[in-house]
Amino acid sequence: MPHYTPPVKDQQFLLHELFKVSESDVPGYKELDADFTSAILEEAGKIAANVLQPLNSVGDEEGCTLENGVVRTPTGFKEAWTEMAAGGWMGLDAKAEYGGQDMPYIMGTATGELFSSANMAFQMYVGLSHGAASALAVHGSDEQKTTYLPKIYSGEWGGTMNLTEPQCGTDLGLIRTKAEPQGDGSYLVSGQKIWISGGENDLVENIVHLVLARTPDAPEGIKGISLFVVPKFLPNEDGSLGDRNSLSCGGLEEKMGIHGNATCVMNYDGAKGWLVGDMHKGMRAMFTMMNEARLSVALQGYTQGEVAYQNALAFAKDRVQGRDVTGVKNPDGPADPIIVHPDVRRNLMDQKSIVEAGRALVFWGAEMIDRSNRLNDEEAEDMVSLLIPVMKGFLTDKGFETTVLAQQTLGGSGFTREWGLEQFVRDARIAMIYEGTNGIQSLDLVGRKLPQNGGKTIMAFFDLVKDFIKENEGNETLGDGFLEPLKAASKDLQAAGMYFMQEGMKNPNNALSGSYDFMHLFGHVCLGLMWARMAKAAQEALDGGTSDKDFYETKITTGRYYMARQLPMTGTHLARIQSGGDTVMALDAANF
Amino acid sequence: MPHYTPPVKDQQFLLHELFKVSESDVPGYKELDADFTSAILEEAGKIAANVLQPLNSVGDEEGCTLENGVVRTPTGFKEAWTEMAAGGWMGLDAKAEYGGQDMPYIMGTATGELFSSANMAFQMYVGLSHGAASALAVHGSDEQKTTYLPKIYSGEWGGTMNLTEPQCGTDLGLIRTKAEPQGDGSYLVSGQKIWISGGENDLVENIVHLVLARTPDAPEGIKGISLFVVPKFLPNEDGSLGDRNSLSCGGLEEKMGIHGNATCVMNYDGAKGWLVGDMHKGMRAMFTMMNEARLSVALQGYTQGEVAYQNALAFAKDRVQGRDVTGVKNPDGPADPIIVHPDVRRNLMDQKSIVEAGRALVFWGAEMIDRSNRLNDEEAEDMVSLLIPVMKGFLTDKGFETTVLAQQTLGGSGFTREWGLEQFVRDARIAMIYEGTNGIQSLDLVGRKLPQNGGKTIMAFFDLVKDFIKENEGNETLGDGFLEPLKAASKDLQAAGMYFMQEGMKNPNNALSGSYDFMHLFGHVCLGLMWARMAKAAQEALDGGTSDKDFYETKITTGRYYMARQLPMTGTHLARIQSGGDTVMALDAANF
Repeated sequence: MPHYTPPVKDQQFLLHELFKVSESDVPGYKELDADFTSAILEEAGKIAANVLQPLNSVGDEEGCTLENGVVRTPTGFKEAWTEMAAGGWMGLDAKAEYGGQDMPYIMGTATGELFSSANMAFQMYVGLSHGAASALAVHGSDEQKTTYLPKIYSGEWGGTMNLTEPQCGTDLGLIRTKAEPQGDGSYLVSGQKIWISGGENDLVENIVHLVLARTPDAPEGIKGISLFVVPKFLPNEDGSLGDRNSLSCGGLEEKMGIHGNATCVMNYDGAKGWLVGDMHKGMRAMFTMMNEARLSVALQGYTQGEVAYQNALAFAKDRVQGRDVTGVKNPDGPADPIIVHPDVRRNLMDQKSIVEAGRALVFWGAEMIDRSNRLNDEEAEDMVSLLIPVMKGFLTDKGFETTVLAQQTLGGSGFTREWGLEQFVRDARIAMIYEGTNGIQSLDLVGRKLPQNGGKTIMAFFDLVKDFIKENEGNETLGDGFLEPLKAASKDLQAAGMYFMQEGMKNPNNALSGSYDFMHLFGHVCLGLMWARMAKAAQEALDGGTSDKDFYETKITTGRYYMARQLPMTGTHLARIQSGGDTVMALDAANF
Repeated sequence: MPHYTPPVKDQQFLLHELFKVSESDVPGYKELDADFTSAILEEAGKIAANVLQPLNSVGDEEGCTLENGVVRTPTGFKEAWTEMAAGGWMGLDAKAEYGGQDMPYIMGTATGELFSSANMAFQMYVGLSHGAASALAVHGSDEQKTTYLPKIYSGEWGGTMNLTEPQCGTDLGLIRTKAEPQGDGSYLVSGQKIWISGGENDLVENIVHLVLARTPDAPEGIKGISLFVVPKFLPNEDGSLGDRNSLSCGGLEEKMGIHGNATCVMNYDGAKGWLVGDMHKGMRAMFTMMNEARLSVALQGYTQGEVAYQNALAFAKDRVQGRDVTGVKNPDGPADPIIVHPDVRRNLMDQKSIVEAGRALVFWGAEMIDRSNRLNDEEAEDMVSLLIPVMKGFLTDKGFETTVLAQQTLGGSGFTREWGLEQFVRDARIAMIYEGTNGIQSLDLVGRKLPQNGGKTIMAFFDLVKDFIKENEGNETLGDGFLEPLKAASKDLQAAGMYFMQEGMKNPNNALSGSYDFMHLFGHVCLGLMWARMAKAAQEALDGGTSDKDFYETKITTGRYYMARQLPMTGTHLARIQSGGDTVMALDAANF
């Protein structure tokens, strides 16, 4: 059975030594002193480790079942949900007026990490409900907010997002679901939606579906899509449950992983609903929350990497096999623990260096979202919008890769269900696909985000890297090990951007063929920057005479590994990009 | 439901235009004219596509069951086994005197590809039986050969390899299973073996277990291991089944994939067995067949990639979503097929270019094994021994990666069980682990194979690349697109080898920390060489006025893609290697 230890110390390091939240000008950050955040994270960690983690393999083995329209979640999920709800975790970062705790988004992210590492399938019910509530909080009418938000934040009701239909996933302009106005402000929604996470479940007494649909007079394509709120039970004015709405779960998908989460086919048969936000602006309404939604998937990437790494590490310290070539380390045993072997260490260091920098990048994203939401900081909003596809695409690819590396650490045991590593691999895999496949992330990055504001935001990113390097020139710790590789990687990224500008103009396929490599190149530069900043913070703690030398020295050593062993990938990505679109596009479809 | 089309045309291209088998001096190759091999491959292809492939998802869903000591394989496996046996496929490349068909190993490899793509879990029963027979064929006494080989090649009996025990996988010196001599030439074998593929099953009437064990007087460690043949039923002199031996299946592993193959815990409780080969030379006996065993796992890597690619390609041609940015391609439909999008093509081209070159590399390996076995060609034997860890480690990593890429082509559908892509991912994963984990392959490569014959073999490999480049200078097709990148990649490989010689001498960790990257660097150079050779062969066909221009031009185009987009990875691998062992080894185990 796998285990999970909440990495609260690493989280605290980021909050207080890297991002120094309690010194920040973001409203609500002042209150986040180290004792306070530690108390919250420890509490969330207890639920994660003691309640959610033991249910992770249960959820995987039992899965969800559909019987007579009722979806039963795995044993223990309902009790865990009730406990999470009672603790106020569902509305941690929601407004107090709707029953939330009004904490910054970064705290929702930090606690979300713990829940997600412990049980990704379970946390998806929480996350999707939260996402639906967020969309209502921004675009809903006052009445809609009052009706739905307190119920969702209290955990009494859940929420879902309904976008995909059989004929359309990425290309939502092809949506066919119809919404017919009834003249009383309500609509009757009809159509089939697929891959609806938690579309039906027994955790909550009511489910608030947000559904993209088309009114009869709507223009074709993406500009004719509107958003509707379609509750499973129509709420009475006093908040009690009224009539059952005409919608039902028509089936559950059998999947590679996240078996504990019900992936539903949802049939709407003239279900009563109400418009959310403006008519025909459904895409905008849905995608206002996109940065948060995608950041929470980026988080899933490294969280599965984190828990997989913890288990791989424990195995590597425990399993004895072979001897250290430089001298026996465990003379009293029949062999040495496999962590002595360089290739096992390479594997573990890859895992560790990706997960820790991935966490830093996601926390940075959360901090920028807080700046944007709480300070109306447009630069922060632009920057996080630029980086979101990188975070989602790169960190979910790397997160999956990390789980595969961790599985490999265990050798044959990694392939057995008993040890649990293979579940992390299967669960992590979905994060590369949903919330916009990683290919789509790379298109969003290169096609939309890179040129945004006439390239001002990407230039701001380069300045940020350049300024960091300049400010820290002469810093002994950072010197050759961090600043030089970061400079080289950032130069590769600039060269790639330059190539796109010059050659993409001649033929867009030159840019689009390199979009995926660009996303990864950018991701490496981001993690390189995170490691350089973490090394600096760690050195400051060491200079300040910390009593915990090992912790901070380990940060610097791990960062050095990343810079030396991971960052060189930028050269390969650049070479691929600069090879252009010709070899990619040369074949006729018939000749593949 | 996934589909599978045997790629016989690609196989024929390799046999007759790349390796020109019927012009070869290897005994048995003369008979392999194009019509003959085509007939065999078409026939094998029919079994693969019509019999084995439909059982692939059945095997995955049903798995194997153990009841009262009896292992039941999935529905249809027994009938498929009988059909394969009746067709003579079990002994295709075995000696005629023991009931085989005496064909070269390369034909066993080519047909094995088809069976493995169609149903990897099923083909493992065939492959492991074949492997056990091969070990007996080399090391067994005449009596053992006469007793066991005809029964295995006819498919009446099966065979297994028993190495692993709970406390030892890689480190076989820790084996505890005992073999006590009975004075009559027989031994009583006692101990527990784990992860025994097909250790018990209902496909065959008897199972011939090859078991590594230790006699009472054996020296400690690896030098005290002997190999024993321990049949499930003791054969009578007339070949009929005698007493049931004291061995049993104690349990089945639950695994991530290959559910159709029974992975058994085998308990030997004083089971009667006989020494195979020399006392205390069990490791040598087991590992004589290592090149073949590991090549057959290398093959599994690209075979899962092949079938996954075929299904991804069909989806990409069929699924319409979004529009080609350079102009609408499917004006009558609601959207264009996704194969128009550059990032989808990048993904497909990665898959295609890896699978086709992977096949070429494995066929080359098989040809060298034939040269070694049938001509006693020592250079071929040395070369294939050098390359085997590269083939196994690199091609199974890349094969798995290919299945993940193919799964990604399908977006959300790739994550559902219905489409079958996720099974290829789960099945392919094991090939990176068994038959020596890929980390162990990299150690074998750098620690043993690289220095073999004082470095003569690796120098011979470099010469081979150099000679090819020199011979083809001025060839217009090969020029910039193939020879230059191959030269650069080969230079990276030489630089890495040089680094190991210089720095590995100072500290072995400098070499061992880079072993995995070296294996991948080497793999890329091998696939680059294969593509250059295939492009040359294709150009020759085009120059000869072939009527099938599309096929040969596609080969060249796909090769160009590999050289431009995959081969640049050698630079990153070299950079990692040259960063040395310091960052890898710096952390104390306690500080991870």
